[in-house]
Amino acid sequence: MENIKIILKSRPNGMVNEENFDLQKSSIPNIKAGEVLIKIEYLSLDPAIRGWMNAGTTYMPGSPLGEVMRAFGAGKVIQSNNDDFPVDTYVEGLLGAQQYTISDGKGLKKIDLSKGPLTWHLGILGMPGMTAYFGLLEKGQPKAGETVFISGAAGIVGSTVGQIAKIKGCRVVGTAGSEAKCRYLLEECGFDAAINYKTEDLDAAIKKHCSEGVHVFYDNVGGELLDIVLANLGKGARVVICGAISQYNAKSMYGPKNYMKIVTARGYMTGIIVFDYINRYQEAIDEMSEWLKSGKMSTKEQVEDGIENFPATLLKLYTGQNFGKLLLKV
Amino acid sequence: MENIKIILKSRPNGMVNEENFDLQKSSIPNIKAGEVLIKIEYLSLDPAIRGWMNAGTTYMPGSPLGEVMRAFGAGKVIQSNNDDFPVDTYVEGLLGAQQYTISDGKGLKKIDLSKGPLTWHLGILGMPGMTAYFGLLEKGQPKAGETVFISGAAGIVGSTVGQIAKIKGCRVVGTAGSEAKCRYLLEECGFDAAINYKTEDLDAAIKKHCSEGVHVFYDNVGGELLDIVLANLGKGARVVICGAISQYNAKSMYGPKNYMKIVTARGYMTGIIVFDYINRYQEAIDEMSEWLKSGKMSTKEQVEDGIENFPATLLKLYTGQNFGKLLLKV
Repeated sequence: MENIKIILKSRPNGMVNEENFDLQKSSIPNIKAGEVLIKIEYLSLDPAIRGWMNAGTTYMPGSPLGEVMRAFGAGKVIQSNNDDFPVDTYVEGLLGAQQYTISDGKGLKKIDLSKGPLTWHLGILGMPGMTAYFGLLEKGQPKAGETVFISGAAGIVGSTVGQIAKIKGCRVVGTAGSEAKCRYLLEECGFDAAINYKTEDLDAAIKKHCSEGVHVFYDNVGGELLDIVLANLGKGARVVICGAISQYNAKSMYGPKNYMKIVTARGYMTGIIVFDYINRYQEAIDEMSEWLKSGKMSTKEQVEDGIENFPATLLKLYTGQNFGKLLLKV
Repeated sequence: MENIKIILKSRPNGMVNEENFDLQKSSIPNIKAGEVLIKIEYLSLDPAIRGWMNAGTTYMPGSPLGEVMRAFGAGKVIQSNNDDFPVDTYVEGLLGAQQYTISDGKGLKKIDLSKGPLTWHLGILGMPGMTAYFGLLEKGQPKAGETVFISGAAGIVGSTVGQIAKIKGCRVVGTAGSEAKCRYLLEECGFDAAINYKTEDLDAAIKKHCSEGVHVFYDNVGGELLDIVLANLGKGARVVICGAISQYNAKSMYGPKNYMKIVTARGYMTGIIVFDYINRYQEAIDEMSEWLKSGKMSTKEQVEDGIENFPATLLKLYTGQNFGKLLLKV
């Protein structure tokens, strides 16, 4: 049996490029004691992948050169020497950008399909959904009636944050980069306002839609957008840094010149590292699964096809060409 | 009787200049019902003055053009129509850069000289001391054994923060801009290490002196220094922004490129606005007065002379030429 793998060939300097990857084929070895063979069905294209392509990231070492590119995936156990993961068990984890992987079970998480379809477990019920849930509720501490502002709001994290904030009784305002995405936020996610940052005056739009200032800012974007929102913080604001997708391919990070606005707002800036909540994922999965099944919340997916398209699909993340949680059907 | 006043003539664009001020003389009107006449004995030269010279600041409107420059001062009531402030009462407040002022008592605070000499009430027992005390203890939440890092450590705020942190059992490291200031931190303030940021490699020195990273960062300086410390935060770090003296005269603020290090450190960035603690000043004055009298803490002052030297003295603050709390004897 053959395995097709996407190898990290070189580290990008600036924007990621398809040339940074290589496609390799190899035969699959026999599994040893305690191991399982997993057939990967879906790979998750996450913004974090760009960071993993660097030599060292802020919270874990880079994906090694010449090896399979690190990526979250979900699939089915098809051979097993491990009683914890019998054949036909669905699992997720950092399975890598490939068709098959062998695992000793470490870092592997069983998927309960009664909570939702397999793809949800890489999205709204997976790492991005956990990031939204714990980042907003634990770090943002939103209170009913407050205004929650979300950048990159049409992404899987942002749209989930906004929908949770609505359930918690907040006023929710988000930014996105197209009219279609803004419509999605208003019509499908129940946002109170959506700002197209490419065509609108962001500062004026925030002042219009957040008349008491921004109480919770959930930032996925960074850059100048972060500065504009900082200038519009409300009293006691909490700034939750989740990511900075505008900067991941930049050669030099943009530093927020308005950081002292956090001081005058009597607020704070903090961030979310989702892995810190790994022991509490189940409570979030249970609650969000209920919200999804009862129609209080929805999620949108964009599924591309074929392991060989991993590099091209990844690029869509950083150019705003994705719309919904980006997945690759292997 | 004549009053000599320092008037704000123009707003600086970049570095403050003596030309931004004018000296005016006027006669002192008679006090009305409820008013007092105060003879100002000392004026306080505080970094915040540069912000007040702008049209609008982050937390209060600018000092109006053509009027007496806003400044903290301390003096004695010499005429009184106000029973709360009889003649010979010592008071402090925003008395303005002048020799005399008339007040209706609003914003005026009585000075208790049993807590320490008059000048202390503009320094370690005044606004700078309160900023140090509440900024460190309330916002920084230092725990015994943790490492507290202070920029601008030889200033009145920084040296007070460091001495309080030592009393609380912390390891204390600070930066200053001369060998004499570093010696002062080590020998008179009891710091564990002092870094001359002008001659030492700051990043290497932090790594050497803060082997577990910086747990509390009390920042008075901003700019690239802030970025270098952010890259050296310890787990759960609290970054307390007090000021950014390196940036007050800059035409464009420096934004910290390493702000996401706060996220990976599982920390937060917040700040101190001392006026929020005005109802608790007395507890800080009482406690620090005890520390000062018992020799657990000391303070250093630099007293210049003559109201006409207000502009030249102010400039010393932003060029690092002051050493100790900068005061003007009127």
